[in-house]
Amino acid sequence: MDLDLSAYSVRTDLALEAHDLASSSGTPIPGVHTSEFDQEGIRVSLIDITSQEGSRALGKLPGHYITIEALELRNKDTDFQDKVATVFAQQFEKFLQKLNIEPNASVLIIGLGNWNVTPDALGPLVVENVMVTRHYFELMPGQVSPGYRPVSSVAPGVLGTTGIETGEIVQGIVDKSKPDLVIAIDALASRSLERVNTTIQIADTGIHPGSGIGNKRKGLTLETLGVPVIAIGVPTVVFASTIVNNAFDLMQNHFRKQTANTGQILGLLDNMQEQERLQLVKEVLNPLGHDLLVTPKEIDQFIEDIANIIASGLNAALHQAVDSDNVAAYTH
Amino acid sequence: MDLDLSAYSVRTDLALEAHDLASSSGTPIPGVHTSEFDQEGIRVSLIDITSQEGSRALGKLPGHYITIEALELRNKDTDFQDKVATVFAQQFEKFLQKLNIEPNASVLIIGLGNWNVTPDALGPLVVENVMVTRHYFELMPGQVSPGYRPVSSVAPGVLGTTGIETGEIVQGIVDKSKPDLVIAIDALASRSLERVNTTIQIADTGIHPGSGIGNKRKGLTLETLGVPVIAIGVPTVVFASTIVNNAFDLMQNHFRKQTANTGQILGLLDNMQEQERLQLVKEVLNPLGHDLLVTPKEIDQFIEDIANIIASGLNAALHQAVDSDNVAAYTH
Amino acid sequence: MDLDLSAYSVRTDLALEAHDLASSSGTPIPGVHTSEFDQEGIRVSLIDITSQEGSRALGKLPGHYITIEALELRNKDTDFQDKVATVFAQQFEKFLQKLNIEPNASVLIIGLGNWNVTPDALGPLVVENVMVTRHYFELMPGQVSPGYRPVSSVAPGVLGTTGIETGEIVQGIVDKSKPDLVIAIDALASRSLERVNTTIQIADTGIHPGSGIGNKRKGLTLETLGVPVIAIGVPTVVFASTIVNNAFDLMQNHFRKQTANTGQILGLLDNMQEQERLQLVKEVLNPLGHDLLVTPKEIDQFIEDIANIIASGLNAALHQAVDSDNVAAYTH
Amino acid sequence: MDLDLSAYSVRTDLALEAHDLASSSGTPIPGVHTSEFDQEGIRVSLIDITSQEGSRALGKLPGHYITIEALELRNKDTDFQDKVATVFAQQFEKFLQKLNIEPNASVLIIGLGNWNVTPDALGPLVVENVMVTRHYFELMPGQVSPGYRPVSSVAPGVLGTTGIETGEIVQGIVDKSKPDLVIAIDALASRSLERVNTTIQIADTGIHPGSGIGNKRKGLTLETLGVPVIAIGVPTVVFASTIVNNAFDLMQNHFRKQTANTGQILGLLDNMQEQERLQLVKEVLNPLGHDLLVTPKEIDQFIEDIANIIASGLNAALHQAVDSDNVAAYTH
Repeated sequence: MDLDLSAYSVRTDLALEAHDLASSSGTPIPGVHTSEFDQEGIRVSLIDITSQEGSRALGKLPGHYITIEALELRNKDTDFQDKVATVFAQQFEKFLQKLNIEPNASVLIIGLGNWNVTPDALGPLVVENVMVTRHYFELMPGQVSPGYRPVSSVAPGVLGTTGIETGEIVQGIVDKSKPDLVIAIDALASRSLERVNTTIQIADTGIHPGSGIGNKRKGLTLETLGVPVIAIGVPTVVFASTIVNNAFDLMQNHFRKQTANTGQILGLLDNMQEQERLQLVKEVLNPLGHDLLVTPKEIDQFIEDIANIIASGLNAALHQAVDSDNVAAYTH
Repeated sequence: MDLDLSAYSVRTDLALEAHDLASSSGTPIPGVHTSEFDQEGIRVSLIDITSQEGSRALGKLPGHYITIEALELRNKDTDFQDKVATVFAQQFEKFLQKLNIEPNASVLIIGLGNWNVTPDALGPLVVENVMVTRHYFELMPGQVSPGYRPVSSVAPGVLGTTGIETGEIVQGIVDKSKPDLVIAIDALASRSLERVNTTIQIADTGIHPGSGIGNKRKGLTLETLGVPVIAIGVPTVVFASTIVNNAFDLMQNHFRKQTANTGQILGLLDNMQEQERLQLVKEVLNPLGHDLLVTPKEIDQFIEDIANIIASGLNAALHQAVDSDNVAAYTH
Repeated sequence: MDLDLSAYSVRTDLALEAHDLASSSGTPIPGVHTSEFDQEGIRVSLIDITSQEGSRALGKLPGHYITIEALELRNKDTDFQDKVATVFAQQFEKFLQKLNIEPNASVLIIGLGNWNVTPDALGPLVVENVMVTRHYFELMPGQVSPGYRPVSSVAPGVLGTTGIETGEIVQGIVDKSKPDLVIAIDALASRSLERVNTTIQIADTGIHPGSGIGNKRKGLTLETLGVPVIAIGVPTVVFASTIVNNAFDLMQNHFRKQTANTGQILGLLDNMQEQERLQLVKEVLNPLGHDLLVTPKEIDQFIEDIANIIASGLNAALHQAVDSDNVAAYTH
Repeated sequence: MDLDLSAYSVRTDLALEAHDLASSSGTPIPGVHTSEFDQEGIRVSLIDITSQEGSRALGKLPGHYITIEALELRNKDTDFQDKVATVFAQQFEKFLQKLNIEPNASVLIIGLGNWNVTPDALGPLVVENVMVTRHYFELMPGQVSPGYRPVSSVAPGVLGTTGIETGEIVQGIVDKSKPDLVIAIDALASRSLERVNTTIQIADTGIHPGSGIGNKRKGLTLETLGVPVIAIGVPTVVFASTIVNNAFDLMQNHFRKQTANTGQILGLLDNMQEQERLQLVKEVLNPLGHDLLVTPKEIDQFIEDIANIIASGLNAALHQAVDSDNVAAYTH
């Protein structure tokens, strides 16, 4: 799998993190509208970037972003997972309305990533668990129960195993099957270990070259595919150097709180810019094989749980006949 | 998975079986040329159907057919498997020459079937084990070692899990990636339990609606895809009614040999035509849940072994740099 | 895996089938008490063999047998599967009471069979899904919520992959962990294709050498292990010759019904005893590789569904805190 | 899976690391004999701890330790993997001779760890790939070809999935099957990311409570099992805090080399003892969910490769009939 170079910088795939970095002073950013709420231990943040100015300030494309954060996902509590799936379904349904996607619009779900690399298998696992209905509409039009829309679903593989750019494969399938909307699911490299397997981002900006941990140089966007593209991303891996770099911040904050010390804390590191410091960490770790992309030991279980949450959430959000208050009943 | 209705009749996907049925009298069939040879316990049969007359006689499309039969494949002998892979590679290479496929022609390998249904997973398993090179030619043209050609490989899924006809997905991928040749691998329903996992057919006639055990109503052919299509098929399942119907023949032959009895052998069955008898068997077995498609208990191991044979055989046949005398060294 | 030679005869692992064969005349059999009822499409049969006379008549050991038959299991209907799990749980709970197993008796669940052979993976799959509690009782005695009992669970593998007889491994584990009851789950060879994946047998007679499709020469019984052994068996494979032999019976019945013909029906077969006829079928099929053990094409899904039914049924039956009216809620 | 508390300290499971820490001054340690050599990019270190004094100095039990280090294992080069397997086989064979294990001594291989947690699945994967012969000696004594010894192999599961302490299960199996030697394979928590999946340790000291990443409180030792126990361990996971703590050292060394600075380098951290600093890192990371056990993204492939190396190495070392110069030919 080709690495995402952006993951080597402090740049982030998450609009929420970009916003936190940009607005650390607390001043509102022009062209950026935010709101957030908590629901049973699940934090939902909405960020709308409505101008080029806002886009530049955050380093993210104009568009709508939803972030669902649920740290308790690591506790393997199936009741809590059902709650997250329900919140996901409710937010996704509102998101479709905001984007004026019609209830009968046909949807193609694309599961990006590699089956055989567990932390990259999120997309294919969602594809395996999602409810597929398009063929009923094609084969027996008029006989499908009300409350369903045509949904199709493909896991196109990755460049290293197909030899074809994922964007080309998806374009070919979109050209032939003509969906009204594409939903692309992908595993992301995280800027923080604590986000790994605890955060879901929904965005209407599509998938761009160099995001995610797989290779999709051509991107999956309204421009390349001709239909709107909603991206669902979950951080599943993090660079060792990112873990170290974050730890420096945490240590500095820890010492600042504990001591009245205004002088030296982490010595030479105190005066470095974050990007400079990260670069240094990478230079030091790399030659020794210390700067790998890593994932939690329990990744097999985590990836399966999150894939089930997204699949059952999508089933409920896409089909009115599926009750979005109790999404778990419709998947296994 | 949608069933192949033709499997309910005595019709066969194997040209070799069709030829045996049509030429039972021993008289040569006009427009059909055959030859065969044995190599270390492996039987290779070549059938060329060169006229409409021959096509009608066999009920198979005009074209070239190779059948490789190796009953010992059931013995789990890895040395023998390597021999079969070598024979497959040699025959496939000659087949490409016969069809005038250039050594640098680009190839797209399509693995039909369903990952999650073991006897239908042959295609996806071959895709997983085959050597993919196309992206090197795209990303670093001129830097690829001589002796390789561009090969790409996709497992498009089945209608029931994607919601899109496999033929549409493949057309879309062919349109975008523009291979010179498509090779499609599929699991077949057999007319005989003894053929299951022991026979490989190669044909240049493509995949037609209603062959194979998966659904591909649109077919994968020169007409639909615009490039030649070589189909590789392996029987992996058989109807219970087929097993029973075959047994009637075997019993009749057994009794005829043992006795001078020219009278009643299997009573009322003696006077039935085969198709009529098969229909009767189906009528009797069906209501009781007795007429399932079945596969040998050891299918997990068999399907993996055959997939490795085909993948390593293709690697050797498609790339001159891979030695076709010792194909096993190039796969794992 | 070593084959069960008894599967080559007309002998059956199912007491229900043995009873049907023995009582075909309709006369009650001394020392055998039976009852049966239907519940929402699920047939439950209870057979108690209380004397040596009854045992000889059926060819089964004295003991208590429950058979649950649910042909609709093949329809992949999750609601129906939940019903079967509930019936299984209710019957298993009554069975424990009948055997005077105390609510706090500790239980060791043994999943016989081979992970890597799908139709033989039933036992290991149940072990994977069953709720294990023994270590809580060992590590924090007195702190476990009421309504639970100590349950442990092991999949000991098969002779071909461990090199040790399964009976020896289980004896060793029983000696060390000292359960009050052993429950052994195993896949069986069936006498009829229609029973494959549709029938569950519960018996208090243990597992005897030569039953099941795996090798357990030493048996798992009260005698060998020193504690009661309940066996749970599900037919998952059937010999091709058994399918053929059954078909002869079905054909004969079919012709008898349709015609007033009292003369020749299946010719030479009409006068053969069943065992003689089966022997003949085997002789005819065997040399041609036609007499394999086969399993339905959909075995991957079937085996997972049945394993979930048994695991969730056991969870509900073994722990009073798990509600046996809605067993599905406690498994995934 | 229960965590190994020792992994929270700077203590190490690897004798080589313990020796490096203890002998940083370069002075030889009494009661500790070491030697090492490189072979085609593979580093082999032998450490013999022959006295209680040496044992105390290293914090490791008296015994013989071999460490095989092969950083290139991360390059997915199958030729190199074969070389590592060959070196492993040669060293393991010598190790058996040193311990006076007879060529016909029977061996039980125990694969510790959890199938369903990829970085903990090393032991079960080795068990799956190792050649098992004991049953041939039991069933057909005198008919086994010369050059083989009786080998059996079990993956006993982990406490969380069986409910029984692994040590109890293994004791039970040893009591019944009476091997002359036990070889236990386990995944370890590493003190350094660079060791993960690149280092193999062989030791004759058995498995002790609190080593490894699985729970085996009772230990697998000569004392508990009554036969010698050789432990094979591979680091597969590392705590995030360990990565950070190592990075501090690397950064300090880096700055010391680059500058003549003898003053402040990492500020407050400069004066801390390593254990104190690690404790601080843990305190800072833990509340934020930053201190997980992590594993490289490519763990699926790594664990399979190392398991194959160990399995083929064991096959060659245990059976004289298997050629230890070309071990790869005997596995797949």
